Amino acid sequence: MERKVAVLGSGSWGTALATVLAHNGYNVSLWSRNREKVWEMAETRRNQQYLPDVELEEAISPTAQMEHALQGAETVLFAVPSHAMRKVATQAACAIHTHQLVVHAAKGFEPETLKRMSQVLSETLSTHTEGQIVALSGPSHAEEVVRRQPTTVVVSSMDARLGDKAQDMLINSYFRVYTNPDLIGVEIGGALKNIIALGAGMSDGLGFGDNAKAALLTRGLAEIGRLGVAMGAKPTTFAGLAGVGDLVVTCTSQHSRNWRAGYLLGQGYPLENVLDEMGMVVEGVKTTKAAYDLSKRYGVDMPITRELYRVLFNGKQPQQAVEDLMGRGKTHEMEDVVRYL
Amino acid sequence: MERKVAVLGSGSWGTALATVLAHNGYNVSLWSRNREKVWEMAETRRNQQYLPDVELEEAISPTAQMEHALQGAETVLFAVPSHAMRKVATQAACAIHTHQLVVHAAKGFEPETLKRMSQVLSETLSTHTEGQIVALSGPSHAEEVVRRQPTTVVVSSMDARLGDKAQDMLINSYFRVYTNPDLIGVEIGGALKNIIALGAGMSDGLGFGDNAKAALLTRGLAEIGRLGVAMGAKPTTFAGLAGVGDLVVTCTSQHSRNWRAGYLLGQGYPLENVLDEMGMVVEGVKTTKAAYDLSKRYGVDMPITRELYRVLFNGKQPQQAVEDLMGRGKTHEMEDVVRYL
Repeated sequence: MERKVAVLGSGSWGTALATVLAHNGYNVSLWSRNREKVWEMAETRRNQQYLPDVELEEAISPTAQMEHALQGAETVLFAVPSHAMRKVATQAACAIHTHQLVVHAAKGFEPETLKRMSQVLSETLSTHTEGQIVALSGPSHAEEVVRRQPTTVVVSSMDARLGDKAQDMLINSYFRVYTNPDLIGVEIGGALKNIIALGAGMSDGLGFGDNAKAALLTRGLAEIGRLGVAMGAKPTTFAGLAGVGDLVVTCTSQHSRNWRAGYLLGQGYPLENVLDEMGMVVEGVKTTKAAYDLSKRYGVDMPITRELYRVLFNGKQPQQAVEDLMGRGKTHEMEDVVRYL
Repeated sequence: MERKVAVLGSGSWGTALATVLAHNGYNVSLWSRNREKVWEMAETRRNQQYLPDVELEEAISPTAQMEHALQGAETVLFAVPSHAMRKVATQAACAIHTHQLVVHAAKGFEPETLKRMSQVLSETLSTHTEGQIVALSGPSHAEEVVRRQPTTVVVSSMDARLGDKAQDMLINSYFRVYTNPDLIGVEIGGALKNIIALGAGMSDGLGFGDNAKAALLTRGLAEIGRLGVAMGAKPTTFAGLAGVGDLVVTCTSQHSRNWRAGYLLGQGYPLENVLDEMGMVVEGVKTTKAAYDLSKRYGVDMPITRELYRVLFNGKQPQQAVEDLMGRGKTHEMEDVVRYL
């Protein structure tokens, strides 16, 4: 009998993961809420909107019917944006069974509640506790994965057996999957890196160079780590694929929406104009607000996040924000990290 | 009385540091062993070879006379390549006094002996123990520093008071200096990052994408950290400016000689041709050999270094090296790090 996986969400990442799974011998139901898009994918065998250059593997069956997608699947992989997770999970809930492996590949917090995705999923699915959810993260442009270029990701679950299952399912010669039991750290790393990408773009937009960007990345990683540790994450996770790895790929790629938004802000455009021009959600803007709120809740010093918050929401000039960051008191590099280690 | 610093070495980095010090109000003797170059700098007020676009500050006095450079200097800053450190230090030794602060800004091991720069300096200078040397490292293109673009670096000494002194001397509004007491980690991070830059170039030369490069960076950082910890470094240092910060700036800059050498290797050119074409020392090639030897000496697993070594010295095909790296057994992301933490 053929083994089946349901991938919920047919954005570029959901489609790329479906491709990996099909390549690994699974039958894949690729669910989208958009019937037209499903029809188009079934007809043209392409995801014209997100990955127009690649033909869908034969084993991928696009569908708009949730029950049809979930029926007989041994794994359900949520690949929807974080703000849509609760809605899609609620829709899927009644057709998900206890024995199905639940994996998600979303990077971000739920807006307003600031909850992690595994928390949202376990609240929505009565069949699965947070400890039974697997998170997938890491530095991975979908466009490169479908071209079978070497890529590494990390899967994380509090239950090591479930992490191993997800690893077995996804690993192949171009898609190397590591496991890491630190679910909280993996989820937080993926969510918070967008803040630093925004800051990196702003630095570039201001005309600063590689030194400034490297500083932002390094000190940004340190403050993300501080918040993460205060929230229960392990510090080493931020030195891994879901931390520094994802941060590097996001901050150095000019394709990133967050980088682009930061770049325009650095060039002096006001936030409203930037969001208008982008014409879509800039995850990093929401995440900056979320991290700013979380830093207050957990009493963690996050100078870069604080300055970005002031630029985004209090009209502070980016140039002034950078000067204030550079002009702080003399600092011992490790003093803040050490406090939590 | 004016305060004086001697900067030994008038490459791009020595010249940039001299500029920072002059800007901070010091008189700077900028020493070069090359008399013609000294004459040229004195005459044209420019370092035509390395930083042709910037005028030397008035307070910088080029000199080829070591004793003249050191006379009355409160600090001696060695900014020579690691392979030249012992020679220059030997030349300086008899004119250096116990009360002078000794700082070095070289990244690399001594060839053959595999010693760190503070070890070389303390062996050469009878006036200073290893614990009395300060190392300066971090993500810093000289070209950006002389243009006064925001830059962060780290100074490290086993003696916190000496680190603080170096910090006070160098810090200003565009040059932010952090302290870190982990001298071993700071020196090793700066030396080993060149290996990963070489690997990143090779990945690009093979036509791989951002995912592969981020993987290389992250896993490279992990194995550098493993070796460093085995040699006595603190793991957190590798998450800081002398670790991930310097790594990012080196691996993403196409100006890096190491990246360029790796790129040519990835495109299929044999090592001899690459070294010929580069026409100068490629630090990462020597460092790969050094790290390979050190990994054996300390019994540390360094898969990326090992594969690079095989490509460089055993004629292995880069494509095969990448396949072997991707195809290793399934791995737990943190298992190796955790062993040392």
